[in-house]
Amino acid sequence: MKMRDFSQDHRWLSINTATVRKQHGAEVPLSRIIDQCAERGIRAISPWRDQVAAVGLDKIARQLKTHEIELSGYCRGGFFPAPDAAGLRAALDDNRRAIDEAKTLNAPCLVLVVGALPGALQGQAAYKDIGRARSEVRDGIAASLEYAREVGMPLAIEPLHPMQAADRACVNTLEQALDLCDALDPEGSGMLGVALDVYHCWWDPKLEQQIARAGQGPKGRGASRLLAYHVCDWLTPTRDLLSDRGMMGDGVIELRKLRGWVEQAGYAGYSEVEIFSELDWWKRSGDEVLDTCIARHRSIV
Amino acid sequence: MKMRDFSQDHRWLSINTATVRKQHGAEVPLSRIIDQCAERGIRAISPWRDQVAAVGLDKIARQLKTHEIELSGYCRGGFFPAPDAAGLRAALDDNRRAIDEAKTLNAPCLVLVVGALPGALQGQAAYKDIGRARSEVRDGIAASLEYAREVGMPLAIEPLHPMQAADRACVNTLEQALDLCDALDPEGSGMLGVALDVYHCWWDPKLEQQIARAGQGPKGRGASRLLAYHVCDWLTPTRDLLSDRGMMGDGVIELRKLRGWVEQAGYAGYSEVEIFSELDWWKRSGDEVLDTCIARHRSIV
Repeated sequence: MKMRDFSQDHRWLSINTATVRKQHGAEVPLSRIIDQCAERGIRAISPWRDQVAAVGLDKIARQLKTHEIELSGYCRGGFFPAPDAAGLRAALDDNRRAIDEAKTLNAPCLVLVVGALPGALQGQAAYKDIGRARSEVRDGIAASLEYAREVGMPLAIEPLHPMQAADRACVNTLEQALDLCDALDPEGSGMLGVALDVYHCWWDPKLEQQIARAGQGPKGRGASRLLAYHVCDWLTPTRDLLSDRGMMGDGVIELRKLRGWVEQAGYAGYSEVEIFSELDWWKRSGDEVLDTCIARHRSIV
Repeated sequence: MKMRDFSQDHRWLSINTATVRKQHGAEVPLSRIIDQCAERGIRAISPWRDQVAAVGLDKIARQLKTHEIELSGYCRGGFFPAPDAAGLRAALDDNRRAIDEAKTLNAPCLVLVVGALPGALQGQAAYKDIGRARSEVRDGIAASLEYAREVGMPLAIEPLHPMQAADRACVNTLEQALDLCDALDPEGSGMLGVALDVYHCWWDPKLEQQIARAGQGPKGRGASRLLAYHVCDWLTPTRDLLSDRGMMGDGVIELRKLRGWVEQAGYAGYSEVEIFSELDWWKRSGDEVLDTCIARHRSIV
């Protein structure tokens, strides 16, 4: 199968708005980011809930419609584990709201960063049993999936890099995410799948095999599990576990090869640029960052 | 099966000498570290090649004999990938020397940090094809294993955390390491196995399953693959990808549970403390660090 040609235009580029959430080191409103994308003919974005809330959900929905910009995903639901029953319930309520917002914005999926040891992100884990966290994640997704099916909003589990297993997500490989999908949605309804981010998964020796599995759906039938595809690059050295992602081409990830694998598996959607970079790109102008994303999308991705 | 009781003494404690290689922020000679261990009745260490070379191989061998301190492993061989044939040959020569040194010191195994994208550790990868690196690792281990068999020095592949996949080791899960063992040593001769470090593997959803597999040897027959067991802890937050490891008990790893799994799998050797901590423990006195290792070995490990 021939890969899509990205070199002539950027019709398959999406911008995860975290990539330009800070410009010259300062937070920028989502409405401004949408304008910057529209000016460049960028057809899709993936915004974050806090950015949407800061401007207003309906206002953002209208602005996107005016500019004919669609979503490649909505960031994010998840963070299911909690130290007690009240915390678990609160997480489910919050995910229900996230699903509603995603629906209002007409997102193709809600991305789930599933959560890990509760409290670890704040520096003090309430418990250390990662098996328990994984069990709470499973139950949380199962409960959210019921509502997601009702309103028709697919959930995309994002396996996160193992270096974030303690504090952000205890689903850490594509294989693990797909096992979870198969357990909770054995029929491959299209309502549960994965968001594949090269930053989190590039190192995995089973990546090619599991991407092929994801494309086939459960037991080779049912809908593809590949709901979103995120790109950036892995820098050497990496100076921070969260916020030192590289621009495509500046690191060691074989981006063309990986896109080949996902397209071979049937993925034909957006290539979404998601770069957290406190140390570099967030210090630059948003215009420079977006122009660079377009150029690298065409030459590298 | 009942776990060994570590609470009454520290007979199963080994100190990886990296843990105290810097004391009050300054490098300390291995001969001094050995004396500090001997004073405390520590029965085993795992020293590094550069530390041994700085004092002299024969001198260290004699000192260990005098103090009746044995090795729980020798650090380290590996770093097989290279951009050209001369580099690949040089790596094999170097591993041969490491095997000879391990033999002189009567080590139970030579630990292999297998290497990754050549040049990445220096900030510029000579190539990005991690599949090629993995193939060069496989060939390098195969060649080294021939010599290791001749002299009788087991090789222990250490899977490293995926965050070190680009620059230090492209073997990143226990499953991958065991697949490699099975490919190169299908009969389970005892000459090829793994060094399991909780820091690198604690996050792995397949860890319990793969530890059981390791203990059984290939296809449930042959020698156990579990040649070494390393402990420390995973801190939240982790501030550096290499050098911010925690003391046992200060992080989120379920150390007692993991030791239970390796003992269940038949491991009855040392629990080796390996802590790289530029930001904390290397700034303290070696005496404080070693006393803390002993206390935590008894109360936490």
